[in-house]
Amino acid sequence: MRLAAECEILFEASEPTPVIFMLRPRSGEGQWVVAETYLLEPSVSVTEYTDTFGNLCQRLVVPVGAFRLHTTACVEAAAEIDVYPGAPFVPIQHLPEEVLRFLLPSRYCQSDQIGNLALEIVGDAEPGYDQVEAIRHWIQTHVDYQYGTSDASTSALDTAQSHVGVCRDFAHLGIALCRSLNIPARMVVGYLYQLDPMDLHAWFEAYVGDRAESPTVGRWYTFDATQKEPRGNRIAIAYGCDATDVALSTQFGAMQLLEMKVAVEALEEEINIKVRDSLLSDP
Amino acid sequence: MRLAAECEILFEASEPTPVIFMLRPRSGEGQWVVAETYLLEPSVSVTEYTDTFGNLCQRLVVPVGAFRLHTTACVEAAAEIDVYPGAPFVPIQHLPEEVLRFLLPSRYCQSDQIGNLALEIVGDAEPGYDQVEAIRHWIQTHVDYQYGTSDASTSALDTAQSHVGVCRDFAHLGIALCRSLNIPARMVVGYLYQLDPMDLHAWFEAYVGDRAESPTVGRWYTFDATQKEPRGNRIAIAYGCDATDVALSTQFGAMQLLEMKVAVEALEEEINIKVRDSLLSDP
Amino acid sequence: MRLAAECEILFEASEPTPVIFMLRPRSGEGQWVVAETYLLEPSVSVTEYTDTFGNLCQRLVVPVGAFRLHTTACVEAAAEIDVYPGAPFVPIQHLPEEVLRFLLPSRYCQSDQIGNLALEIVGDAEPGYDQVEAIRHWIQTHVDYQYGTSDASTSALDTAQSHVGVCRDFAHLGIALCRSLNIPARMVVGYLYQLDPMDLHAWFEAYVGDRAESPTVGRWYTFDATQKEPRGNRIAIAYGCDATDVALSTQFGAMQLLEMKVAVEALEEEINIKVRDSLLSDP
Amino acid sequence: MRLAAECEILFEASEPTPVIFMLRPRSGEGQWVVAETYLLEPSVSVTEYTDTFGNLCQRLVVPVGAFRLHTTACVEAAAEIDVYPGAPFVPIQHLPEEVLRFLLPSRYCQSDQIGNLALEIVGDAEPGYDQVEAIRHWIQTHVDYQYGTSDASTSALDTAQSHVGVCRDFAHLGIALCRSLNIPARMVVGYLYQLDPMDLHAWFEAYVGDRAESPTVGRWYTFDATQKEPRGNRIAIAYGCDATDVALSTQFGAMQLLEMKVAVEALEEEINIKVRDSLLSDP
Repeated sequence: MRLAAECEILFEASEPTPVIFMLRPRSGEGQWVVAETYLLEPSVSVTEYTDTFGNLCQRLVVPVGAFRLHTTACVEAAAEIDVYPGAPFVPIQHLPEEVLRFLLPSRYCQSDQIGNLALEIVGDAEPGYDQVEAIRHWIQTHVDYQYGTSDASTSALDTAQSHVGVCRDFAHLGIALCRSLNIPARMVVGYLYQLDPMDLHAWFEAYVGDRAESPTVGRWYTFDATQKEPRGNRIAIAYGCDATDVALSTQFGAMQLLEMKVAVEALEEEINIKVRDSLLSDP
Repeated sequence: MRLAAECEILFEASEPTPVIFMLRPRSGEGQWVVAETYLLEPSVSVTEYTDTFGNLCQRLVVPVGAFRLHTTACVEAAAEIDVYPGAPFVPIQHLPEEVLRFLLPSRYCQSDQIGNLALEIVGDAEPGYDQVEAIRHWIQTHVDYQYGTSDASTSALDTAQSHVGVCRDFAHLGIALCRSLNIPARMVVGYLYQLDPMDLHAWFEAYVGDRAESPTVGRWYTFDATQKEPRGNRIAIAYGCDATDVALSTQFGAMQLLEMKVAVEALEEEINIKVRDSLLSDP
Repeated sequence: MRLAAECEILFEASEPTPVIFMLRPRSGEGQWVVAETYLLEPSVSVTEYTDTFGNLCQRLVVPVGAFRLHTTACVEAAAEIDVYPGAPFVPIQHLPEEVLRFLLPSRYCQSDQIGNLALEIVGDAEPGYDQVEAIRHWIQTHVDYQYGTSDASTSALDTAQSHVGVCRDFAHLGIALCRSLNIPARMVVGYLYQLDPMDLHAWFEAYVGDRAESPTVGRWYTFDATQKEPRGNRIAIAYGCDATDVALSTQFGAMQLLEMKVAVEALEEEINIKVRDSLLSDP
Repeated sequence: MRLAAECEILFEASEPTPVIFMLRPRSGEGQWVVAETYLLEPSVSVTEYTDTFGNLCQRLVVPVGAFRLHTTACVEAAAEIDVYPGAPFVPIQHLPEEVLRFLLPSRYCQSDQIGNLALEIVGDAEPGYDQVEAIRHWIQTHVDYQYGTSDASTSALDTAQSHVGVCRDFAHLGIALCRSLNIPARMVVGYLYQLDPMDLHAWFEAYVGDRAESPTVGRWYTFDATQKEPRGNRIAIAYGCDATDVALSTQFGAMQLLEMKVAVEALEEEINIKVRDSLLSDP
């Protein structure tokens, strides 16, 4: 489905504030960025670079005063996510090198401390996809989604105890539980069509077998513990080990976020995307 | 200056043809992509990746029949390029690691064979920027710009002999001559505002000293041997050792390019960039 | 000084155990590996790769039974570490891209939770090197070095409260405090000559100004909160955000470490390093 | 087989000469470096880095006067190379991203100019391994191995015409022919046990199907057009597009190579590798 996503953030800085934004979705295996815009007001000098996860990061210094960031993206996204019950566990020795880092504990996903809970949850589910789905389902049914119950320091261990949180906490818990079973898991932030209430969203991916017949080949699958059913129409903006790596805005100074608006709409018909009237059009 | 660039290419494939396009400019040190669109007709599955030069590459299989690619980019570009007569040569041992590859000969830039010509051209110019400018000026005044005089196999050695070519040949010759003097040089393809006749363009960059007082610190400078005077308002699309690395389209099969149109315009006033009517706008 | 370091580890695996070792020091800016050996008994197939920090990692599956790993390295190391009181803080916007990740909180270094303690410790020290030294000194004088007081789950927050730990905990606390002040800090594991008792060691590095006159250029400096005085003669084996990234052995299964021996000696005279009698020597 | 390889080079520099050496084999999929030594006389400061091909490169400035480089490596190498007649061609769209660069023409492998010869050579061989073997065999039987018939500027096109050259030329020709058929091919330099006369050696690898049943999965195979039969016992030192990338020594100045000696021996019994008498040995 072709989706139009939009994010607008207003900041107020009392001093020049270095900041790293991660708000430019990349085209990749699962999505194609047909069009995008990225506006900063006032206009400032920006450097863009790629981090070790492949995310496009925008570095800049927010000047004193009001600052507005406005991004849109028109993206061809998969209407459904792939599900594959029974997909096998990929033995560690067969994981691609770039996947190994997603086995390690991280700031918010202390997988080294949560193994017992994971074993309890997965019971005798088959190693691999079914374990991840058991984890996802357990979170979905045992953790309450409530705004204001967690903050920037809340970790998977906290959520395992409090049984309450928001999408970010759901994802952290899912990731920590997977990794404790030696299943690589990573955090994704992005847009989800028809999320209610609309906001930027977070979910997780787990790396398990791609094809039953070749148990050494794996791939990433999408899991979202905030949803009852598998849902597609997602636009991934950034990937990382946890929220540390995928913060849409990492600021170094006393800048305030005043307001943030997010919208995602389906583009039912082929729209006419243009920066301006076509330069090439016939007269 | 804010530029709107547009490129439209029509292909005709008689069999499914794997292809790699490089047609998505990246935001970076010198330019900011405010908006871009990338349309393929018919729509096909695309994978985007980053090559070892940092270019965004689009992989896909062009289906049988007519195929249209249409990209636009609205970019904040520098109105003038930096010139720095007297900028010193950066000793090899102080070059950053990622710059070293641009010292080596490559397919079209046989720097190992062209040292004598380089020494003759630069005469007693000071090592560094002044040598590169001497090279650029020599090419500009000694090589004739003529369409149809070179082809995909023409190299810097050929052009050094024929004294005729197009922008790509001018760049190759400049690069080969610089490298033979141990000055890192790389190829750039992109858009140049008010190029006449309008087309995609190629030029080169050389790496020499940034600040006279610290002779070990360097940076890339833009050189364009097709132009009499330094000109800004450029949008870089891809960087590489030579044309091999920065082909806008690398195809593996019998696909024909039927037509290609390029346009670049200045956006004098702050335009209202939008994918569609703002999703966030108040009713 | 030329150092000979040696590490021998005996494992016992009750089932085939995938493991990642990080036990091959790399030559780099500060050290030169003159010779090294890396023996595994029994011999098994190993794949070596480079992680995102540049560390050489060895992947293998430890077979059932006893397993012995024995590595030696003969390294030209700096006899003294650089100290630079007054070296300035490098503003975030001038940090190299690859350094930015060392500003973020990580599994054992919750820099987002420890800012108040950092401010208290540094008092009115000048931003930069002097702050890091104040942190290092505070840890050295306020935290007791005691074996057995911490374990694999102990984090900087724990140590800030308990005031007791080992080299790993000292490093984590130093790193977390630095990052909370927006000073990039990273963990190093390696060898330290004349460490008493001898063992593998951990310390940290902080990124502050290189030259007072150019406040935007920085470099890494070595800090070791376990030592009273600056000490050189170190061999770095691995770098990372914290202990998660630089584990000498990351195992995925029930393998037991039976014994570990470490030795470091100075090689006072030029030794005759050879794999065997020189193949090239005249008879 | 366990091999001991040794390389000794004597240089004489009349001025300080920046140089990049590539003389440290890496452990990897196919080989395990059990021990290695790397001596420079006189001792100088060296920086080691990894290039975009994964090779370890040593940067240094050779001082005025005599300079000696002596490296040894004790390596567990495969006694036989894998051959797989009938291994299929991997369609371009299924090649891993990091393999794509090996499809492009390069300084010494003008694959864009040699397609007709390739088609003639391969005849109706099955696309994939059999084509590469046809190419290898053609070179082996049609090109004469003669020292002194080629130099640093000799390219695959030259060799295709002259039908004479050395190992480097044989490899370049093989690579160019493979690429012209859209088969990724890369250059390898290293040691070959029992090469006669002994010297550093060059050969090539081609990327074709790994398993007949999954035609989209490929791997690198070794081909050596200088040899009549497939031969193992190789130690790879460096990989690249052609000789440009894998020069064991790339120098920037007037340094002379005075002498070079190479030796490779089999280590029949388990040798006692040590830097010195074991530091850990019991008294």
